[in-house]
Amino acid sequence: MIHRGELTIATKGRGTYDITQEVAGIAGASNARFGLATVFIHHTSASLIICENADASVRRDLEAFAARLVPDGDRLFTHNAEGDDDMPAHIRTILTQTSIGIPITSGKLALGTWQGLYLWEHRTSPHRRQVSVTVIGE
Amino acid sequence: MIHRGELTIATKGRGTYDITQEVAGIAGASNARFGLATVFIHHTSASLIICENADASVRRDLEAFAARLVPDGDRLFTHNAEGDDDMPAHIRTILTQTSIGIPITSGKLALGTWQGLYLWEHRTSPHRRQVSVTVIGE
Amino acid sequence: MIHRGELTIATKGRGTYDITQEVAGIAGASNARFGLATVFIHHTSASLIICENADASVRRDLEAFAARLVPDGDRLFTHNAEGDDDMPAHIRTILTQTSIGIPITSGKLALGTWQGLYLWEHRTSPHRRQVSVTVIGE
Repeated sequence: MIHRGELTIATKGRGTYDITQEVAGIAGASNARFGLATVFIHHTSASLIICENADASVRRDLEAFAARLVPDGDRLFTHNAEGDDDMPAHIRTILTQTSIGIPITSGKLALGTWQGLYLWEHRTSPHRRQVSVTVIGE
Repeated sequence: MIHRGELTIATKGRGTYDITQEVAGIAGASNARFGLATVFIHHTSASLIICENADASVRRDLEAFAARLVPDGDRLFTHNAEGDDDMPAHIRTILTQTSIGIPITSGKLALGTWQGLYLWEHRTSPHRRQVSVTVIGE
Repeated sequence: MIHRGELTIATKGRGTYDITQEVAGIAGASNARFGLATVFIHHTSASLIICENADASVRRDLEAFAARLVPDGDRLFTHNAEGDDDMPAHIRTILTQTSIGIPITSGKLALGTWQGLYLWEHRTSPHRRQVSVTVIGE
């Protein structure tokens, strides 16, 4: 059995957005007891990560690290038509994930205790982001 | 239904090579209307990325960033039997993707408007690279 | 056909642990001749990589690179309740993989000649790590 669900996430600009419950809802709606949910984001300036979900300081430090690793406005970058965050958004996407496959057990996402699934918006301005979830199960 | 397709990509050395059409061709040949195409590269010194496909400056800047992040000939590296680009190629592979799962809708890869799938050759010399596509669909 | 296998890996602290044979064993036990094995690690401070498996110097250099890129005890990090390696472990996980999809051909993992699958423990102290393998095949 294959099931597809689609999500639209309205971001407020750069930052991490917890989409675990939305994706779990699609897995539940598939009625699969057992299988795999493959999450995919249809963009090149926002990405997916699985990150510790208990302490928000993890995601603040992650943001600070990304800003230092790939600085906005770095003079190395020539692709800046949409602003100082344009090329960093593409690189941050490439260094993280566009698709993640998550197991389903007993009809639920089999995430670890501290695992949350996040959409990471890399642009500084708000965007509408499309995410799809393909469930292959039985 | 499960379908497999294989690609051999002859690279001219370091750089990004658009393989979107080749992978789309395998998805089409599977006759799956709906499902998932998982692309896999069978190497440790070349990788897969989904990257903005409209402006080539994105991939030039990406290459410049990778060269700064993981410098060829860095004295940190002891594994250099095949040259200054040997260990950087392994690290660049590990920081990007060896497999990516892409949804299929209406018989086509459901990529976003600006998403292209690229093989990223990290060695400076030409190589023949094996890529496989596993389609699970209905 | 969908098959699931579970692994528990006891690590001795930071480092790379070859789990290729364990995952190949699950793929074999599934009796799938052809399909996809999706490996998933249920943690946010340990990750999965596919890495060159012939020369151990590759993994030593990789470890040295990661230590330089994401330094333990970096003053940028505020999330250090569990020690200097706490936040670096989360970032190293996010920069690598939580899930990898590997093709199965003729009942075996279709890895390239030099590809090994490794669990990368990012914490300095020993941990027990859960890994699951979802085989979708025929």
